[in-house]
Amino acid sequence: MKNSVFIATSLDGFIAGKNDELDWLSTFPEIDHIDTGFNEFTSRIDALLMGRNTFEVVAGFEEWFYKKPVFVWSNSLTEIPEKLQDKAFLVKGSIPEVLAEINGRSFKNLYIDGGKTIQSFLREDLIDEMIITTIPVLLGSGIPMFGELPKRLVFECVKSTRFLDKVVQNHFVRKR
Amino acid sequence: MKNSVFIATSLDGFIAGKNDELDWLSTFPEIDHIDTGFNEFTSRIDALLMGRNTFEVVAGFEEWFYKKPVFVWSNSLTEIPEKLQDKAFLVKGSIPEVLAEINGRSFKNLYIDGGKTIQSFLREDLIDEMIITTIPVLLGSGIPMFGELPKRLVFECVKSTRFLDKVVQNHFVRKR
Repeated sequence: MKNSVFIATSLDGFIAGKNDELDWLSTFPEIDHIDTGFNEFTSRIDALLMGRNTFEVVAGFEEWFYKKPVFVWSNSLTEIPEKLQDKAFLVKGSIPEVLAEINGRSFKNLYIDGGKTIQSFLREDLIDEMIITTIPVLLGSGIPMFGELPKRLVFECVKSTRFLDKVVQNHFVRKR
Repeated sequence: MKNSVFIATSLDGFIAGKNDELDWLSTFPEIDHIDTGFNEFTSRIDALLMGRNTFEVVAGFEEWFYKKPVFVWSNSLTEIPEKLQDKAFLVKGSIPEVLAEINGRSFKNLYIDGGKTIQSFLREDLIDEMIITTIPVLLGSGIPMFGELPKRLVFECVKSTRFLDKVVQNHFVRKR
C-alpha cells in the first residue's frame, strides 16, 4: 500500500493563485510538450483519490485525463455526473474508512490529489512519496500546498530532474 | 551588480520554526561534513547584507562565519559590538540608499541574507539569483522564506544538485 503525490507548485509553494488561478503553470509553455514523468507515474498507480473541489475542476475540463479509476472523497456530493459514472466513484467517511474501502477493492497504489486531500493525508502521516514539480515563479500569495501538521515529517530527496533549464522536479520519499 | 541569496529552507518553505527553531537544519547531520557549495558561493560575492535580526543571531555564535564584509541594515541599531567592528558595518535608509552606499564602495556582488531582508529585496525585484537548499522536512509552521509581492517574479532553475540522496539544492536565476 502506497500513497503518492504528483503535483506542481510555484516556487513559493502555492498550488493555485488566491483566486484559484492556474495560468502560472504555463509560465513556460514549451514544458507542455515534454514528458515530465506523468505517464511513468500513472503507470505505477492503481487509482486516484481526490476531494470534491479538485474533482469539480477536472470534471469541468473537456477531456478526462485519467486512465485509472478516480475516487472522489466527499461527504456532501451525492452523485457523479452521468458521463463519468464508469470513471469516477464516490467515497465517504474518515481517511481510514476511505482507504479501507479503496484498498479493499485491490487498489493498493494511490495517487492522492488536491490540496485539502493531500494536507489531510499528511496530517495522518499517510503520504509515502511526493513528486513535486516546481514552476519557478513567485506568486506572492495563493493556496498553499502544505499546511499545519501535528508533528514533523522527514522525507528524502531521491531524485531531481530539470526540464529545459527552467523547471525542476524533485522526488521526495518518506523516511520512516 | 548582482544580489544573491544562499539559504536553506524546509520542504514546506520555512527558514525557521515558529519559535525560531533551527534544529531541523541538522535533520541529516552527515550533511555538515559535505561541501554544499557555500565556499564557491562566497568566493564570488564581495559582501553580505543582512538585517538586524539575522545579525544578532550570527553575532551570538562563538565563531564568526564570514570572510567578506557584512553590512547590517538597521534603522534602530546604533552600533556594532566592539569585537566585530572590523567585520560588520551599519547601513541605514531605504533599499536604494543602502545599495547606493554599498555598491558605491565597490561591493558589487552582494549576498542578501535574512528572511525580512530577502523579502524586502524581492518586493523591489532586486534579487538576481537564489540558491535554495531544501531540507526535506515538513515543519507544519514557522517563519516563511517568501512573502507577499506586488507582482509575480519569474525565475529559471539553472542547476539542481542532490546531497547524500537526501537533500536537494536548486539554483534559480531571475529571468528578466
